[in-house]
Amino acid sequence: MFSVDSHKGKYHVVFGTPLEEAVKSCIQDTDFLVIDKCVYDKYPIFHRLIDSERIYILRAGEETKTLQTCQELISILISSGFKRNHKLVAVGGGITQDITSFTASVLFRGIGWKFFPTTLLAQADSCIGSKTSINFSNTKNLLGSFHPPEQIICCTEFLKTLPRNDIKSGIGEMLHYYIYADSSLLEDMTREYNKLVENPCELMGRYIEESLSIKREMIQRDEFDKGERRVFNYGHTFGHAIEALSNYEVSHGLAVTIGMDIANYVALKNNIIDEETYLYFHKHLKNNLTPYYIDNDRIEDYYNLLMKDKKNTDSDIVCILPYGIKDLRITKVSDSNTDISIDKLKRDLVDYMEDKCL
Amino acid sequence: MFSVDSHKGKYHVVFGTPLEEAVKSCIQDTDFLVIDKCVYDKYPIFHRLIDSERIYILRAGEETKTLQTCQELISILISSGFKRNHKLVAVGGGITQDITSFTASVLFRGIGWKFFPTTLLAQADSCIGSKTSINFSNTKNLLGSFHPPEQIICCTEFLKTLPRNDIKSGIGEMLHYYIYADSSLLEDMTREYNKLVENPCELMGRYIEESLSIKREMIQRDEFDKGERRVFNYGHTFGHAIEALSNYEVSHGLAVTIGMDIANYVALKNNIIDEETYLYFHKHLKNNLTPYYIDNDRIEDYYNLLMKDKKNTDSDIVCILPYGIKDLRITKVSDSNTDISIDKLKRDLVDYMEDKCL
Repeated sequence: MFSVDSHKGKYHVVFGTPLEEAVKSCIQDTDFLVIDKCVYDKYPIFHRLIDSERIYILRAGEETKTLQTCQELISILISSGFKRNHKLVAVGGGITQDITSFTASVLFRGIGWKFFPTTLLAQADSCIGSKTSINFSNTKNLLGSFHPPEQIICCTEFLKTLPRNDIKSGIGEMLHYYIYADSSLLEDMTREYNKLVENPCELMGRYIEESLSIKREMIQRDEFDKGERRVFNYGHTFGHAIEALSNYEVSHGLAVTIGMDIANYVALKNNIIDEETYLYFHKHLKNNLTPYYIDNDRIEDYYNLLMKDKKNTDSDIVCILPYGIKDLRITKVSDSNTDISIDKLKRDLVDYMEDKCL
Repeated sequence: MFSVDSHKGKYHVVFGTPLEEAVKSCIQDTDFLVIDKCVYDKYPIFHRLIDSERIYILRAGEETKTLQTCQELISILISSGFKRNHKLVAVGGGITQDITSFTASVLFRGIGWKFFPTTLLAQADSCIGSKTSINFSNTKNLLGSFHPPEQIICCTEFLKTLPRNDIKSGIGEMLHYYIYADSSLLEDMTREYNKLVENPCELMGRYIEESLSIKREMIQRDEFDKGERRVFNYGHTFGHAIEALSNYEVSHGLAVTIGMDIANYVALKNNIIDEETYLYFHKHLKNNLTPYYIDNDRIEDYYNLLMKDKKNTDSDIVCILPYGIKDLRITKVSDSNTDISIDKLKRDLVDYMEDKCL
């Protein structure tokens, strides 16, 4: 039994239960389903087993990850007779999780919810960690809370119908945990990469569990993201800016993969790691690196996006760099201290794009 | 130093600092004030010491305790350059507290906030305990979260300008803590009652601290209101229904005082306590009991309001009755078990109104 400690108590992730059995045993008569329309359309089992009056079908997207959607959901729940001892069940990816968990966190000061993650990103990463996020007037994830589910049912069957690009995106996020912990599965993942992408339903189980195990250890120490958990931003500062610069054509996990490679390159160019270490990381990232080139003219745009990603504090740009294997550290970029200067960072970014020609 | 443990860490209540000194020392340049308009108008110090661009003046009322107000506040904060490491400061009573604390709980997944409670209810009760509440489409407190302040600055100076009825309302809530714990201040409060109501600014300090001490002990054990904390509903189930039946002409704490007397009477009439115990409680409640009579025709309306107050669960009516001094217990009212039957409760309510002619 895989369990996670949180401020709201212990919760469990169930692996390996066939979907039909899981739906029958984990969803109660008073539960209310919030399900991504794509999943609902592809998996008739939910339509077949759950009363339509207890289902909210969500057109999941960044544009619906809003307070307005949560308010609509709450109105429907209340008029359907939903009580404070009833539970929500989210079926979908990260956005479905966010809308359901945020709603659950504020309704009756917090009700229980369960989660059937259907994307690899959700199964291997977002399903644990307590975070909920809601967009607010053009600012992504401006609102949110910490409200873990009571149970997560991880059915890799869902991965069968996932586009290959989404599998790769999930792998990007998993790689970032593996590199953080220098996981023993790094080598296997690199060797098995193509098979994993082709047949995630059969092969992904142990990789997902490893990814969650690494994350669990951290979130149990720093559930509220006050300090050390920030090293999990490894690849994310540089990655988010790539997502944005590409108008979200580069998916999250693939942008994070590039972001890690950039972070490693910056560390190399500032003599923080040696070439051997850089190449060790690069070997494991390579399979999942998508070609994405930023020409010199757009480096300034890219830098401005990095600035915007500085977590809305008054501080400098903060990025997570490797200082060796299994040694990620928070590093400041500014002109006011001795870490990396802003100009040097911009030059490193130009060099990275020229060196790598990604 | 009075401190309270919470899931977000320890926080402090500061007593006895003169208002001007407290405003100068506790409010920082990057803090943003949310202040009840009535307080802002009566206390020019806030206008004098705080830049108006860092103040949101709130027309505090149940009708503004909504998501819409929180959204407006968030928009103003963001456009004023508010960052995740900045803090909110609430200045006002429970409604100002609720709007500020709920907003703080969801902005950037939870930011810090400080509180200058200005009513006796807020100073002696609501300021600690982590709860935030927001009304949603005609349902009071349907939404909420648990997000304690980082600091509470309790200045009894504010009590000077409080209507006498609000002082009595606060005393009602304090009495419910004192009876729960059989506080040694019960006798003093009963003896000093008139002086306390006349001069709360000078005399209320130690009574407030006692009330918070009693509450603290419980909320540290049951912060998320999962079990034992429910005994603090003593007087509240019967009280809320009186508030509603009177169209909120009877204020909260005065309704709670009547609610406690009713609960004690029901306990007496069901042989749960003896007359001596009933009279012991009654002696301490008497000063604060407002005449409020429900005639026989309206007992059914009153009962229906009690039903509505059953915390939105599938369960029976649950009320908190005394089983002796310092012995409050959760008691079910229904026809399906051996506690108190619904008919018996209705008869007790009729008898109470006739006996007491409140």
